[in-house]
Amino acid sequence: MSEKEIPYKIYLSENELPVSWYDVRADMKNKPAPLLDPVTHKELGFEDLRGVFCDELIKQELNTTEPYITIPTEIRDFYKMFRPSPLIRAYCLEKKLGTPAHIYYKFEGNNTSGSHKLNSAIAQAYYAKKQGLKGVTTETGAGQWGTALSMACSYFGLDCKVFMVKCSYEQKPFRREVMRTYGANVTPSPSETTEVGRRILAEHPGTTGSLGCAISEAVETERNLEGYRYVLGSVMSQVLLHQTVIGLETESALAKYDVVPDIIVGCAGGGSNLGGLIAPFARDKIKGKLDCQIIAVEPASCPSLTRGVFAYDYCDTGKITPLQKMYTLGSGFIPSANHAGGLRYHGMSAVISQLYHDGIIEARSVKQTEVFEAAQYFARIEGILPAPESSHAIRVALDEAIKCRETGEAKNIVFGLSGTGYFDMKAYQAFNDGTMSDYIPTDADLKQGLSGLPQFEGNTF
Amino acid sequence: MSEKEIPYKIYLSENELPVSWYDVRADMKNKPAPLLDPVTHKELGFEDLRGVFCDELIKQELNTTEPYITIPTEIRDFYKMFRPSPLIRAYCLEKKLGTPAHIYYKFEGNNTSGSHKLNSAIAQAYYAKKQGLKGVTTETGAGQWGTALSMACSYFGLDCKVFMVKCSYEQKPFRREVMRTYGANVTPSPSETTEVGRRILAEHPGTTGSLGCAISEAVETERNLEGYRYVLGSVMSQVLLHQTVIGLETESALAKYDVVPDIIVGCAGGGSNLGGLIAPFARDKIKGKLDCQIIAVEPASCPSLTRGVFAYDYCDTGKITPLQKMYTLGSGFIPSANHAGGLRYHGMSAVISQLYHDGIIEARSVKQTEVFEAAQYFARIEGILPAPESSHAIRVALDEAIKCRETGEAKNIVFGLSGTGYFDMKAYQAFNDGTMSDYIPTDADLKQGLSGLPQFEGNTF
Repeated sequence: MSEKEIPYKIYLSENELPVSWYDVRADMKNKPAPLLDPVTHKELGFEDLRGVFCDELIKQELNTTEPYITIPTEIRDFYKMFRPSPLIRAYCLEKKLGTPAHIYYKFEGNNTSGSHKLNSAIAQAYYAKKQGLKGVTTETGAGQWGTALSMACSYFGLDCKVFMVKCSYEQKPFRREVMRTYGANVTPSPSETTEVGRRILAEHPGTTGSLGCAISEAVETERNLEGYRYVLGSVMSQVLLHQTVIGLETESALAKYDVVPDIIVGCAGGGSNLGGLIAPFARDKIKGKLDCQIIAVEPASCPSLTRGVFAYDYCDTGKITPLQKMYTLGSGFIPSANHAGGLRYHGMSAVISQLYHDGIIEARSVKQTEVFEAAQYFARIEGILPAPESSHAIRVALDEAIKCRETGEAKNIVFGLSGTGYFDMKAYQAFNDGTMSDYIPTDADLKQGLSGLPQFEGNTF
Repeated sequence: MSEKEIPYKIYLSENELPVSWYDVRADMKNKPAPLLDPVTHKELGFEDLRGVFCDELIKQELNTTEPYITIPTEIRDFYKMFRPSPLIRAYCLEKKLGTPAHIYYKFEGNNTSGSHKLNSAIAQAYYAKKQGLKGVTTETGAGQWGTALSMACSYFGLDCKVFMVKCSYEQKPFRREVMRTYGANVTPSPSETTEVGRRILAEHPGTTGSLGCAISEAVETERNLEGYRYVLGSVMSQVLLHQTVIGLETESALAKYDVVPDIIVGCAGGGSNLGGLIAPFARDKIKGKLDCQIIAVEPASCPSLTRGVFAYDYCDTGKITPLQKMYTLGSGFIPSANHAGGLRYHGMSAVISQLYHDGIIEARSVKQTEVFEAAQYFARIEGILPAPESSHAIRVALDEAIKCRETGEAKNIVFGLSGTGYFDMKAYQAFNDGTMSDYIPTDADLKQGLSGLPQFEGNTF
């Protein structure tokens, strides 16, 4: 047998857990642009950010030269409760598709948060605890991040205040109960508890909320509380850093069986899952050591990469957070409420944006009903009921595997299955009932969203 | 270092998956009593059962002498999608409790059915398919079994009709949607679609249903359909047989690290999870090779082992299924609707009943609020949000670990974490809100339930 026999699930042992996170910025030829003050448009440094973020996390945020950041032992010990996660060979899917492609997926859903979010939540809670803080505030959209942070805070004995996007809060009452079970305080956003929330409610009565708005509320709350800091589950470079355990484990698992990926696919909302998955492969591609396609998949209803602009923008609706240069639809853009599938953020990680701008990764947008078709198909064959977010990656992985069937190419396709859909059954119900529809913003919708971008010299788009 | 370093999670490799199931009946000194016809009270043989069950499963049901039954390759291949399951060392829990005990749990929740039920579902669907059937009917209580069977039927292309206990159907709409996503047809029970359902609805308007009633409806439906058989997720010896992959893997994993269990704990509803977990250990105990406590934990609200009688009884409310000798509360017993925590069946596996009767295993009953206290405590420390059913085992494992703290004994405690609670958030919500209460049936309640036991010579109790 010339090929090593590959099991259904490749598990690394616990002592093969990465000892460091990897920061791809150290190897990027064009670094992501620095964060700017939302008012003065001046570059922000360590001291400027201390009121909002934990000290150690700011250092990680501002790092662009150090490739490896040691993972503290306490975090590695926590990781051992649910990591290394399996890299699964989709034998059943390949057979059903009749494709010569070899399909692998890195499954991050085998923990109670239901997704990869726990990888960064535990890191952020650890640094908050180490700094002697009392608690943290945050926002959550689909609820995966809020759940992950609740678990992490419960583990370290920190208070946790979560602003949950209102439409998710209502669609997913059980997510709220999971967070409460872990001791978190959960508020639907926009709320009356903050100034920015009251303002948004006055301007847009009946709004179903957005991540950008929940971020504003979480930041305002943090500013008014002693011993608290704001933490977040995506977009920021520090979060992508923590998520590189996904990619590093994937790299090790593939190497064990001499598998070289031809295509790597990940869903992209804020970019944390994608950024974590692709980091070591992007490095090798930048260095000319690996020739592979890296594909970011986003919803057609919130297409920041494929239809947005590359410019400085606010990270939140209230315009109180730093400006970040990224692909964006404008901080005022709110996808239609009929879009069920997560990935609702108006912008994109600065790292992912730069890599996309530089041609290291490409992007595709897919429609919601096509995503749920892929989700159901995958669930029935591979057993795992995927999160709507993750199903964006499944859609493109299936498309690519079908292409291989047509061309006869035995490509190695690796995708990130970032989470499970157990708390997304309202969306599945709409799909099962045939009442799900697609939403694609018009050019006028996009123009409207972009009209709110900050205007200053150099911010051309 | 004298002790081998035990990881957080002990994973076996896929080629260490058991090649056979183990039937403990082959090694029992007193065999479980045979199944009887509900009308004539005559012993039932292969031909008598062919109208209801699949042929191969009847053979497994009637076997009492063959200890090892080969697992077909197709089933082992399916198992590889989610097995071997991890045996987890609860380091965090031990530390938090400050106990010298070593706590291990076999976690069966890392699959979309959310529990161990998939182990038997795939076996039953396989044999149905092999027999050339069109589909199967079944009942489900908490919904774990129905989900598992839907997944298995989807995999083999079988039709799947599920009768779901009405209170669960209403409390867990999302469970229904998972089953629908896998293509199953789900009906709340009692329903108007069967004669027995209509009769029960007429006699008990507004009833929230029971497993016993849903069984009657599933069996009646199967009898009226060509090419269908009835399958079920617990109680029967064939189901316990399939579930022994749990115990066999646990045995292998413990042996790798030279760990000898002092206490083994499992929750007991119909007995499938418990029976699967303990089988090889019960064998060694019967043979005098192992000196350990085996503890079945049941809810105080449905205490078949601790307060029931050991007698022949109907397996269903409609009294159309075979009589089985077991610990029972009477087929008319329906636990209070305020009991949220699963394990609502009036009877108990014949194998578990006989082992209990013979003193190989012991039993404890625990109150619902104590169970959820344990569940929350466990979730916050070990990260996994447990199913209410599984949390019965957690409760007793914690109690035993606390005893060890008092006595200083470093016992090895192994418990079965049979599933996750992601679809049980209504129950968690009641606990979080402080509105959960305990229900303990009075002696009069029990007397009432037992008054319906079949009366015939030799059925003394």
